[in-house]
Amino acid sequence: MNVQSPVSATAEDLMANAIRALAMDAVQAANSGHPGAPMGMADVATVLFNRFMRIDPRDHRWPDRDRFVMSAGHGSMLVYAVNHLLGYDDMPMSQLKAFRQLGARTAGHPEYGHAKGIETTTGPLGQGISTAVGMALAERMLAARFGSDLVDHYTYVIAGDGCLMEGISHEAIDLAGHQKLGRLIVFWDDNGITIDGGTELSTSTDQPARFAAAGWHVQAVDGHDKEAVAAAIEAARADDRPSMIACRTVIGFGAPTMQGTHAVHGAPLGDDEIAATREALGWSHAPFEIPQQVYDAWKAVARRGADAREAWARRLSQSHHADTFRAAHGPVDRAALDAAITAYKHRISADAPKVATRKASEMALEVVNGTLPNTVGGSADLTGSNNTKTKGMTPVTPPDHTGNYVHYGIREHGMAAAMNGIALHGGLKPYGGTFLVFADYARPAMRLSALMGLPVTYVMTHDSIGLGEDGPTHQPVETLASLRAMPNMLVFRPADAIETAEAWQVAMEQTGTPSVLALSRQGLPTLRTRHTDANLTARGAYVLRDVPRRDVTLIATGSEVSLAMEAAERLETQGISAAVVSAPCFELFEAQGAAAREAILGDAPRIGIEAAIRQGWDLVLRPGDGFVGMTGFGASAPAPDLYRHFGITAEAVADTAKQLTQKEGHQ
Amino acid sequence: MNVQSPVSATAEDLMANAIRALAMDAVQAANSGHPGAPMGMADVATVLFNRFMRIDPRDHRWPDRDRFVMSAGHGSMLVYAVNHLLGYDDMPMSQLKAFRQLGARTAGHPEYGHAKGIETTTGPLGQGISTAVGMALAERMLAARFGSDLVDHYTYVIAGDGCLMEGISHEAIDLAGHQKLGRLIVFWDDNGITIDGGTELSTSTDQPARFAAAGWHVQAVDGHDKEAVAAAIEAARADDRPSMIACRTVIGFGAPTMQGTHAVHGAPLGDDEIAATREALGWSHAPFEIPQQVYDAWKAVARRGADAREAWARRLSQSHHADTFRAAHGPVDRAALDAAITAYKHRISADAPKVATRKASEMALEVVNGTLPNTVGGSADLTGSNNTKTKGMTPVTPPDHTGNYVHYGIREHGMAAAMNGIALHGGLKPYGGTFLVFADYARPAMRLSALMGLPVTYVMTHDSIGLGEDGPTHQPVETLASLRAMPNMLVFRPADAIETAEAWQVAMEQTGTPSVLALSRQGLPTLRTRHTDANLTARGAYVLRDVPRRDVTLIATGSEVSLAMEAAERLETQGISAAVVSAPCFELFEAQGAAAREAILGDAPRIGIEAAIRQGWDLVLRPGDGFVGMTGFGASAPAPDLYRHFGITAEAVADTAKQLTQKEGHQ
Repeated sequence: MNVQSPVSATAEDLMANAIRALAMDAVQAANSGHPGAPMGMADVATVLFNRFMRIDPRDHRWPDRDRFVMSAGHGSMLVYAVNHLLGYDDMPMSQLKAFRQLGARTAGHPEYGHAKGIETTTGPLGQGISTAVGMALAERMLAARFGSDLVDHYTYVIAGDGCLMEGISHEAIDLAGHQKLGRLIVFWDDNGITIDGGTELSTSTDQPARFAAAGWHVQAVDGHDKEAVAAAIEAARADDRPSMIACRTVIGFGAPTMQGTHAVHGAPLGDDEIAATREALGWSHAPFEIPQQVYDAWKAVARRGADAREAWARRLSQSHHADTFRAAHGPVDRAALDAAITAYKHRISADAPKVATRKASEMALEVVNGTLPNTVGGSADLTGSNNTKTKGMTPVTPPDHTGNYVHYGIREHGMAAAMNGIALHGGLKPYGGTFLVFADYARPAMRLSALMGLPVTYVMTHDSIGLGEDGPTHQPVETLASLRAMPNMLVFRPADAIETAEAWQVAMEQTGTPSVLALSRQGLPTLRTRHTDANLTARGAYVLRDVPRRDVTLIATGSEVSLAMEAAERLETQGISAAVVSAPCFELFEAQGAAAREAILGDAPRIGIEAAIRQGWDLVLRPGDGFVGMTGFGASAPAPDLYRHFGITAEAVADTAKQLTQKEGHQ
Repeated sequence: MNVQSPVSATAEDLMANAIRALAMDAVQAANSGHPGAPMGMADVATVLFNRFMRIDPRDHRWPDRDRFVMSAGHGSMLVYAVNHLLGYDDMPMSQLKAFRQLGARTAGHPEYGHAKGIETTTGPLGQGISTAVGMALAERMLAARFGSDLVDHYTYVIAGDGCLMEGISHEAIDLAGHQKLGRLIVFWDDNGITIDGGTELSTSTDQPARFAAAGWHVQAVDGHDKEAVAAAIEAARADDRPSMIACRTVIGFGAPTMQGTHAVHGAPLGDDEIAATREALGWSHAPFEIPQQVYDAWKAVARRGADAREAWARRLSQSHHADTFRAAHGPVDRAALDAAITAYKHRISADAPKVATRKASEMALEVVNGTLPNTVGGSADLTGSNNTKTKGMTPVTPPDHTGNYVHYGIREHGMAAAMNGIALHGGLKPYGGTFLVFADYARPAMRLSALMGLPVTYVMTHDSIGLGEDGPTHQPVETLASLRAMPNMLVFRPADAIETAEAWQVAMEQTGTPSVLALSRQGLPTLRTRHTDANLTARGAYVLRDVPRRDVTLIATGSEVSLAMEAAERLETQGISAAVVSAPCFELFEAQGAAAREAILGDAPRIGIEAAIRQGWDLVLRPGDGFVGMTGFGASAPAPDLYRHFGITAEAVADTAKQLTQKEGHQ
């Protein structure tokens, strides 16, 4: 394939070549990075931004902006080049020159929050397209609530072969097709190349047919034919289904000897090839030099966006939805939430119901959903088990997107990514449910929740062997540890209805951290029968049962706290004074600092109790302390049998306590 | 839809109704379980087994048997009922009566190893169909090697809506279509029902079109029309593509008032509905009673299988492949492997190369692959980064399956499940590569490797911030902890070329445990320059640098061991004696027992060093001990900059050592 002839270069050719030049020069300067995708998709990106995108670099959070997601995140230089050319004030040329260097905003993959105009963190393949589904869903839901005067924008995605091979893409496109997300437009960078070589090494899928099977509008174009790309975008926008545009491209387009091969995917081109590319493209400018006419052309895109934003701002100020729209995009009303939860706790501590914490979660959610108007619930097809749908919630059923409950289907991973997209979009507050053990299915997207600092709430029920008969495939034993291992993730395992409500309150108050609520299938007594206005769960751990002089401290979480209480009662009859510490959230407890932790945990021998493995318990346990829990996978049997079988009983705790206190000379 | 009329009941009707009766009675007895799927798919299963399946209950490991995978694992009673009826000697009626009870072989979901005739553990949706792809791939590969005289069997799968909604199914069917696995036949239980309600709540995908897009042969039949099912199986077997047969079924078929609704999916029918079902099906027998004529019909299936197996055994005994076939299905030649690895270690300890452990892994793999003839390599499209393809390996490229290297594509999850299937099938020994951080993508299938005890080897390179510029999305910090949390998984993080070879040896010797090799991108010096025949990595940890009197013990893994050595040298100049313990495998170290561990770790203050979070280090660290590592996500920059930025340096270790030894009064 011939590279473009410089003689016939149009303004858009120059705009595209600026992306190519910046990409290859930045990768070369960093001696690291991926020039192939930005060079291959430069034409598509140029047409998209020049003719369609509506963004205002001076107000990168404008709610009604179009979203652009570089799902093929290794092509990050395309994003940085475009954002520089558009004039984002935090993306000067010095940032491009510092590509992939410490402290630069131009990380190896686009990192949400590092710079304006990066709508989501991408890099782990398939996440971008799946997160974009959440954004596009949020757009339709908000448009249904506030009308097209205020909400009327597109979500555009560039996805590579890798994105479409990853399983999560299936969950995402199925969900998008089902929800008829007509404002979602995906460009497939169909360059026929993966890292190992040609795509024929590993795939034979007819991608257009596959998307069509999922209810998408599908087109195929030459990704270097700008008019064809523009016409396809027009047609995609006109169709009420999500659209996939297969763009046949040459990876590394412009690099005379290397383009179209996997050599240009993930390594610098080298000085000679770069020089040859400059010549082939007719791009005579020095590295990191952009002629003013190219800047001017790109700045016109920004101006058009600024005009649109100003018109939108006028519409908002005149809208009768203005207050609710602004409230939806503002912070959570913490005072109202606190009042509602406190009142609820008053009632529950008096009622002292014996309910599973999954049921307690539904009860607390009634309060939360009654107080916060913009929550969006959902479940990965376990609504009746996760108890995520509260009274009055209505499903989001296309083409009517007015509801507030999403049937995500049996798609934990897609659900998590969609929730990330909803949170990133703004205006809605997502939570979603599945079984705790299936956190493994959702984990790559949960990691992005944590890395991006998105306040997404994961409602994960059936949190131990306490689920019983479904057996070891469904019983988390290492899942709590694996989630606690994740930075910036709050893992709650509440002991009763009060702690569950408190956990919901803390989760809803987060602005930069996702939460997991690990909830029991089995019924649990209410232990906090004495009301406290204070949210004790927010402290991470606290003394639930105090004794004048401690012989032993039992520290437990979730369903094992009532077991610890039972053990403490049993020990008391044997002359051993046991304090019980409930520890619903290790991360918050750790944040209290060592002194506060030690004050709560005390000097006496300690026993940790959790129907899970011990890893992670070194936060509270010392060598010589005891642990009553699991050491391997579970089994299939009724829950009480399993607790006995695995030795997680009040008796076992009491026995351990007796051993420890004897050793310590307390008896 | 009418249930079958008892008057016209054929022998196959009775065979199918026996499955239905056993399923509903066992679920009722357990007061827990899923009657809907077994009752809905009883006709399909009956036709499949009665007319096609070739298995011998007296030799459940017969290598050339057909495989049956109940991907919709909640329908486990279908498997148990069929296996009981077929006469497996470990599946008497007492087992069915003990469905879901402690110690029974009839767990809530089918558990591999619990009973004969359970080919894989299923339950987490999508895993069965994806594991079956590995089985079917192994079949084609072995057929290419040994000929159809010895290897000529089918892999049959029953998959539900959930299996097909999960993302992993996309990776699996894409891989199967690409590899033209013509012996793979999937029955889709198209009952239109999920837990939340009708499938229209969450999906609009045209499944047949989707499978066709992935290169599959597709048919649709009435799943209760036995002749139609049989004809479809015939056609599927005749086609050289993998086949999907969409079986329109009524979930809970036979239950007059509940069939076709989600009420029959996952709960007992109740006594009244069961009585009505008996009447509707014309099944007058008491619970757990099967008339002899039905047993006879099922036993005929077993007899046909036994005949086939005997004929096969005769062919094997006469085959010139007999020895190599048996060797491929036998244990690893540990003596040969040990000799080869020991000779290699001799050479490498003398050469003392400075190589990344991912490169050292390739060097060790040359030895492994040169010694073990039936390894199957692969990578999720990172061959050149994972260094998984050794000299002479050839890709498995359809229709020629003679190779030994699989380009799994950008499908970590599908790769892991396929490797499980290959390992379960027997005859081949799979390993596959990706980046360590993408263990998250593969995690649900890795959990099944561990739960089933399959000796699959995961080659996971780019194991820390040491990968540099790709940034936090690609940098594992919590991944080691999350994998160490998993029961029955060996996580190796070798320090140099010697430990890498030793880790490969241990991994290859496993028979009931999967292994992860976490390998560096960056070059590392050879530290074990004094040869030992003994495999020190097999001990989990050992003293690499000994000192007469320890002031401090530095314990490190992988790339941080050389850093610990550097710190020890630095400390020596300052009068502090530091021992260095290399800890390439925590699980093996834990297995040594506390006394052995303490002997190695010593009494001096300890410092753990790992470019990852601290969780899991309580195996070796006590309160007051030091840790030099990560506390949050990484960043994008050249690796040396990141190590400095995050304070993981020899200097930081030395400073920590000085603080600890001063505190202890050593100076």
